[in-house]
Amino acid sequence: MMVNVGVIGAGRIGKVHVNTLATRIAAARVLAVADISLEAAQSLADQYGATRATDDYHEIIHRPDIQAVLICSSTDTHSQIITEAAQAGKHIFCEKPIDFDLDRIDAALQAVVRAGVQLQIGFNRRFDPNHRRIKQAIENGEIGTPNLLHIVSRDPGPPPLSYVKVSGGIFLDMTIHDFDMARFLFGDVEEVYAAGGVMVDPAIGEAGDLDTAVITLKFTNGAIGMIENSRRAVYGYDQRVEAFGSSGSASSQNIHPNAVTISDERGVRRDLPLNFFMDRYTESFVVELEAFIKAIAEEKPVPVTGADGRAPVVIALAARKSYQENRPVRLSEID
Amino acid sequence: MMVNVGVIGAGRIGKVHVNTLATRIAAARVLAVADISLEAAQSLADQYGATRATDDYHEIIHRPDIQAVLICSSTDTHSQIITEAAQAGKHIFCEKPIDFDLDRIDAALQAVVRAGVQLQIGFNRRFDPNHRRIKQAIENGEIGTPNLLHIVSRDPGPPPLSYVKVSGGIFLDMTIHDFDMARFLFGDVEEVYAAGGVMVDPAIGEAGDLDTAVITLKFTNGAIGMIENSRRAVYGYDQRVEAFGSSGSASSQNIHPNAVTISDERGVRRDLPLNFFMDRYTESFVVELEAFIKAIAEEKPVPVTGADGRAPVVIALAARKSYQENRPVRLSEID
Amino acid sequence: MMVNVGVIGAGRIGKVHVNTLATRIAAARVLAVADISLEAAQSLADQYGATRATDDYHEIIHRPDIQAVLICSSTDTHSQIITEAAQAGKHIFCEKPIDFDLDRIDAALQAVVRAGVQLQIGFNRRFDPNHRRIKQAIENGEIGTPNLLHIVSRDPGPPPLSYVKVSGGIFLDMTIHDFDMARFLFGDVEEVYAAGGVMVDPAIGEAGDLDTAVITLKFTNGAIGMIENSRRAVYGYDQRVEAFGSSGSASSQNIHPNAVTISDERGVRRDLPLNFFMDRYTESFVVELEAFIKAIAEEKPVPVTGADGRAPVVIALAARKSYQENRPVRLSEID
Amino acid sequence: MMVNVGVIGAGRIGKVHVNTLATRIAAARVLAVADISLEAAQSLADQYGATRATDDYHEIIHRPDIQAVLICSSTDTHSQIITEAAQAGKHIFCEKPIDFDLDRIDAALQAVVRAGVQLQIGFNRRFDPNHRRIKQAIENGEIGTPNLLHIVSRDPGPPPLSYVKVSGGIFLDMTIHDFDMARFLFGDVEEVYAAGGVMVDPAIGEAGDLDTAVITLKFTNGAIGMIENSRRAVYGYDQRVEAFGSSGSASSQNIHPNAVTISDERGVRRDLPLNFFMDRYTESFVVELEAFIKAIAEEKPVPVTGADGRAPVVIALAARKSYQENRPVRLSEID
Repeated sequence: MMVNVGVIGAGRIGKVHVNTLATRIAAARVLAVADISLEAAQSLADQYGATRATDDYHEIIHRPDIQAVLICSSTDTHSQIITEAAQAGKHIFCEKPIDFDLDRIDAALQAVVRAGVQLQIGFNRRFDPNHRRIKQAIENGEIGTPNLLHIVSRDPGPPPLSYVKVSGGIFLDMTIHDFDMARFLFGDVEEVYAAGGVMVDPAIGEAGDLDTAVITLKFTNGAIGMIENSRRAVYGYDQRVEAFGSSGSASSQNIHPNAVTISDERGVRRDLPLNFFMDRYTESFVVELEAFIKAIAEEKPVPVTGADGRAPVVIALAARKSYQENRPVRLSEID
Repeated sequence: MMVNVGVIGAGRIGKVHVNTLATRIAAARVLAVADISLEAAQSLADQYGATRATDDYHEIIHRPDIQAVLICSSTDTHSQIITEAAQAGKHIFCEKPIDFDLDRIDAALQAVVRAGVQLQIGFNRRFDPNHRRIKQAIENGEIGTPNLLHIVSRDPGPPPLSYVKVSGGIFLDMTIHDFDMARFLFGDVEEVYAAGGVMVDPAIGEAGDLDTAVITLKFTNGAIGMIENSRRAVYGYDQRVEAFGSSGSASSQNIHPNAVTISDERGVRRDLPLNFFMDRYTESFVVELEAFIKAIAEEKPVPVTGADGRAPVVIALAARKSYQENRPVRLSEID
Repeated sequence: MMVNVGVIGAGRIGKVHVNTLATRIAAARVLAVADISLEAAQSLADQYGATRATDDYHEIIHRPDIQAVLICSSTDTHSQIITEAAQAGKHIFCEKPIDFDLDRIDAALQAVVRAGVQLQIGFNRRFDPNHRRIKQAIENGEIGTPNLLHIVSRDPGPPPLSYVKVSGGIFLDMTIHDFDMARFLFGDVEEVYAAGGVMVDPAIGEAGDLDTAVITLKFTNGAIGMIENSRRAVYGYDQRVEAFGSSGSASSQNIHPNAVTISDERGVRRDLPLNFFMDRYTESFVVELEAFIKAIAEEKPVPVTGADGRAPVVIALAARKSYQENRPVRLSEID
Repeated sequence: MMVNVGVIGAGRIGKVHVNTLATRIAAARVLAVADISLEAAQSLADQYGATRATDDYHEIIHRPDIQAVLICSSTDTHSQIITEAAQAGKHIFCEKPIDFDLDRIDAALQAVVRAGVQLQIGFNRRFDPNHRRIKQAIENGEIGTPNLLHIVSRDPGPPPLSYVKVSGGIFLDMTIHDFDMARFLFGDVEEVYAAGGVMVDPAIGEAGDLDTAVITLKFTNGAIGMIENSRRAVYGYDQRVEAFGSSGSASSQNIHPNAVTISDERGVRRDLPLNFFMDRYTESFVVELEAFIKAIAEEKPVPVTGADGRAPVVIALAARKSYQENRPVRLSEID
């Protein structure tokens, strides 16, 4: 079955998804693209042969020949569009985070449940071959009972200050990926302790945010996790995980553009790891959409649900509270 | 400028190239596909929206709206089709090797020169990011004056015996890639010494071929090279290069499907390297066609010429003679 | 100048030190060995040519021809012997920890100061070439301003339960090394938060201790550290550090008995890391004693002082309190 | 049983062995040291408590209380001293190579056989933990039937020209270690082909020698080997081996002074490999002497025999001939 798709939002991630659907996923067809800029919508539609561009996303939501919508618009529009798309009976793929507000998330998730449609959240890192291999190691019993999880997640450089100011703060903007990864690998979290500081750029601090954070997670299964965040790793995008358990350990290294080592009189060196999240996680964007389209086509459950989209927001809110009050915070205080 | 392409040969590599042109190279359009099996041609054309399928490649060669042809048919047809396509004024991308016979190669290359068209040979490994990085290290002076080159090239397993029998022998079929790599990295070769044996499958020996070979190359610049070939590396496709020079060394490792290490009570281990040449060299197939299309579109020289296609055949013939006579053979004895 | 040494304690670490002094350090001579077991003292003295064995350590302390004593006896005897040896005017090398009790530590350190002798504490890991290289990277500015420190410290297996019961608990027994390493690399600590659990052996929990711990450290310079402890890493002794800063990162890998990789049809693997602390840290035991003997001989300051021995005990006591009360604890609450 | 040893030759390697015997091997005692420089002999004897120094090696050979002699004098004296020591009934450890002349080697070996004493040749690399692990992989069947052997052996820099002139040439001086390693790992050689050049220093060429060589070995078991030699690897002492077989591959990497990686904005790098053979092969010198002393004490066969010392000389002579005549040379032509 061919799945007809409408894409809402023609920005950076919207372009990635339209390209993926057009060139890599034979079972999907992009019929229409919407963006608040009609020009952006038109340009993207033209490039990949979508026959319709619009600046009104309702048009997409209400087209009867569209089965699935991809929500790639700004975060503040997500819950509203999810609700409307669900009410229109569309299956939904929505970029993360769903929202910063739990009530609005809950309203959207309720609409999804009521409509009986499917909702997948765009936690693409779950589909990265490295993280998946660690997940598989856990599932295969290669590490035994999980004991300790360590996630290094450092950006190559901070986002623009204008973005920082509306980002919801480091925990909701950056660590949220790692909270999801923690849940993906080790399961539910019940308590969090966050330490952090402004070590990269004082202006981030003046904007009321942090740029460096260390978070301790207590999982409901008794295991303990650590997350390390920094907004600036000068050597590139640093994305590594170690899962340690009773019978072994699984750990990932960074991804480099080539496997060449240069030895000269100064040292033995490699080129820097990949710097840009699009390059580092290229394959994950393809695999997550393949999974979504396949689930829709085969009427099977999507792999990253609305509940999976909500949970890391709760952890992020608890982490923020923990940092503010400098004490461990149980998730039950938030939720 | 959009380059209109006709593809001759709808087998394994033909499919790869049509897919690449259709999904990855915006500046190219596949107008027609030819194959001795019309069904194969039709199927491939349909899959990627080419409007014409045929079992007569002449139709493609003579279509005025086609600027470039890709020759993906069997080796024995290459020189003939090159000649005809050149005479029809088409630019040509031809899979390697051009031919096993130097006279036929020369006839084809002469036709290309006379017609003033461009010919690129499909030595895709030159476009692999690892081999390119080593090339770049040499060009940047990172290793100083090249002294020693070591190429490990081992297949995960031998091809079917039926293929071995028509392959031209290991030097023309398998080592030819490595001869090209040697030339790409260190320049022209003037003498070759080949040792080898039947270590993988006696049936390969009974078919008159080798399955394991070690070749010493003397380059015209005074450097020395070694190539190691085996038809069976049980751990996967083993493709590594080391270029050693007066001020350093550049060496590549194999490519693995992930960067995860598992440690348990038995050892510290990684998953096997990629096993299939299509997976290992995926990106190189894209980059080589991008380079071809770009050269045609911009009327600039192609990166791997007919002369580059001919030279490794000469080395391979010398290697065969060297093995047969167990002595170093100068290329001037062949050519 | 030759330094004459008396060694108190002929157990495991006493043997290591006597061997080192006898075979690796030309500037030192072991004159006498004391142990509560005269037989143990005699046997060790005989093996390395020390002329005197005794079961009364006072004899060593009061010999006029001995300049330095090594205290390798059980922890509960350290502060007493330090005090007496200092009063007798001997320079002292004492195994860690000095004591579990701050008052007794302070009394001993006061005696050292009053006597004007030198005291070096046996934090041998500071002398490991890997940890030193990271220290050097920090001092050289290779990582810029320190931001994050991550210490993995996992034993291959838990000690006997009888030992656990008198060990002072994981923070004073095991993490104390890591607290010292943290101070060595990033400087003083002002707050600590400890999470942990019993994941290896319930009997350790029944004995009132933990076997797994995750500690967050806030350094006075604003940086943040993490320590991961487990009493059981089935793949060997896991000792790794990463120091991350504003202009780079320095990280160490485990030490393996060889640098050989085996590739077969199941994977690409290495032999396990070294399993025993004596093997892993062999060289550090030599270098620390060299440094001690050299400092004594040249009348220069020793590299790891009494204050360096006291500080990690304070951190350990804060970590214990933090774990018990599940909240961050400032060191000023302890000290 | 304590083995009393006399050491002939107090130069660089003599010092290493005396130190090893004195500090690492409890079952051996150095009674006397001889050197053509009495001062050198005396100094070394004094340092390690040997009671006698002499400039006449005969004194050592004829002392009844000495069971074993170590011959660490210059190569041209080896065969003579071996013969005399054997006739005096001493067990012998002799540095490599035995001699450059097969007749003199044979005379010495005959004397050893007649006297019924043991002779071990100092091919220390056989005792390196990395090379041993590869040997073990072969013996354990981890690589299946051996097919291909690749030895990289590059010095950090060329020896003084004065040494080059008396060295016997690169094959007898440098490659001889690799010929021994090849035999150690893959067994006997029957044919050799050597290519080479002067790429490091023209003065080496003017002295009639090579500084760079590539050698192909055909083993009697049908496997094929390659050796790569260079007198100058600017990044350090490059000593790597790969043994490839029907069911896998075992390969070693270089040894670095630490396991620390530095990542900064320019790249990801390690410190250079160990540069000096004494540092790189430290442990091997200890293990080879332990093996020798143990064999003497227990009256068991030594691990590297006179025949093992002779065989690589034959290969080296064949390699030299091969290079001079640019053709494969069978060992039967030499021997």
